[in-house]
Amino acid sequence: MADGNRTTELRLFPEPRSLAGEEEIYQDLQLLPPASPLLPYVLVNMVSSVDGRSSVGGKAAGIGSQADRGAMRALRSRMDAVMVGAGTLRAEKLNLGPDDPEARQPFAVIVGGAGDMPIIEHLAGRQQDVILALPEGARGTAEAGRDRLTVIEAPSTGHGRVDLGWLLGRLKSDHAVDRLLVEGGPTLNRAMIAEGLADELFLTLAPKLVFGEEVAIVRGDAGGGPGKPQGLALLSVHSSGSELFLRYRLESP
Amino acid sequence: MADGNRTTELRLFPEPRSLAGEEEIYQDLQLLPPASPLLPYVLVNMVSSVDGRSSVGGKAAGIGSQADRGAMRALRSRMDAVMVGAGTLRAEKLNLGPDDPEARQPFAVIVGGAGDMPIIEHLAGRQQDVILALPEGARGTAEAGRDRLTVIEAPSTGHGRVDLGWLLGRLKSDHAVDRLLVEGGPTLNRAMIAEGLADELFLTLAPKLVFGEEVAIVRGDAGGGPGKPQGLALLSVHSSGSELFLRYRLESP
Repeated sequence: MADGNRTTELRLFPEPRSLAGEEEIYQDLQLLPPASPLLPYVLVNMVSSVDGRSSVGGKAAGIGSQADRGAMRALRSRMDAVMVGAGTLRAEKLNLGPDDPEARQPFAVIVGGAGDMPIIEHLAGRQQDVILALPEGARGTAEAGRDRLTVIEAPSTGHGRVDLGWLLGRLKSDHAVDRLLVEGGPTLNRAMIAEGLADELFLTLAPKLVFGEEVAIVRGDAGGGPGKPQGLALLSVHSSGSELFLRYRLESP
Repeated sequence: MADGNRTTELRLFPEPRSLAGEEEIYQDLQLLPPASPLLPYVLVNMVSSVDGRSSVGGKAAGIGSQADRGAMRALRSRMDAVMVGAGTLRAEKLNLGPDDPEARQPFAVIVGGAGDMPIIEHLAGRQQDVILALPEGARGTAEAGRDRLTVIEAPSTGHGRVDLGWLLGRLKSDHAVDRLLVEGGPTLNRAMIAEGLADELFLTLAPKLVFGEEVAIVRGDAGGGPGKPQGLALLSVHSSGSELFLRYRLESP
């Protein structure tokens, strides 16, 4: 791939020897139009240490910098919905909306499975509409007492998880979600990619080695042979100090 | 860190909109002089997928591209010795020298522990001098019948592994090794970094998601709390197609 691509234009940001001032990474992001009339365009955004860890002690907080926070904010401001898996919500308190409460609020979408869903306790941003997607029959675990909460009962796959293709179709048709940002965890990312639903991957590469338990940005195959690798095409590189912000398009199989 | 570094010059290679032609990544590498009169200057070079995997089915081969191979060759050509752990040598056939048999040959250094050391079977480059470092008492496992093989019996740490600080001192004093390239595996990398012996980290970020078993470029802590993260300062970014070549300096604790 590399040799064949040598004549391809690669955009590197910022220009060499002149770093961006106070502007935020991705504030001038050029988004592609959704490719499907039936599904949202899906971006996956993750932060990883240079040694490939996406969390420390189960939490992503603390790996990225202030600049990563700004990049995340810029991405969210362009999205119709921001999605996380229930495990990510259980692990730490999250704010899936913009920092400015007056700004346009994307939907917060929580993809659940079995177990508690601490939406009231862990999800900040009470002015944000929340969609909780649960596999059929698991509906009883939804928390009561939260305003602006919509529960979607979705068909479940053989593994008892929400059918993501079905869910994305419903988000588009019923909630006008044209652009969806997925922020993990590794299990949800893997399912999105494996089912061909993810269009782009944004990776913040934090300049540190974490040495933690082996939690990567996408879940791996424990035992058994690895599946076919997923090819990526680099769209852009931004930097802020030693932190890199990489944007990839997922190549078609 | 990122905010404080915003005014730092960052070199991005190649220039935007003009990729390197047929030149190899790192062929113009500017090395720093060794900082210690007693120890070699140590570079760690690894390849990783975007999802942080450094091997597929136990082997690093197949993750990097031809351009990565060229970068590895350029790095080796500037080194006095190239080191791998015995596990890496067991996993696959290696050539730790330059492709050109007429070129200057760095030492191949194998750091052993328990177990077989298939130097004859797995290590190509018969014109290369090989140093096998074994913890005291494990000497019997060295293979006989290989020319140009030096066995160093080293003090062992509490874990039965070679004391790396001692070994590096010996490589410098007895074999004139001023510059050492470490090429894994994750356990050797971790020990080098944890003991403060590594100066720089070169990471080739291959544009793919591998989804394999969770083998990162440095071994993590299974159980127990993660240690203190190791800070990195980005020195340069090269690209070839969608593959990125990142050079970091390890920050002092």
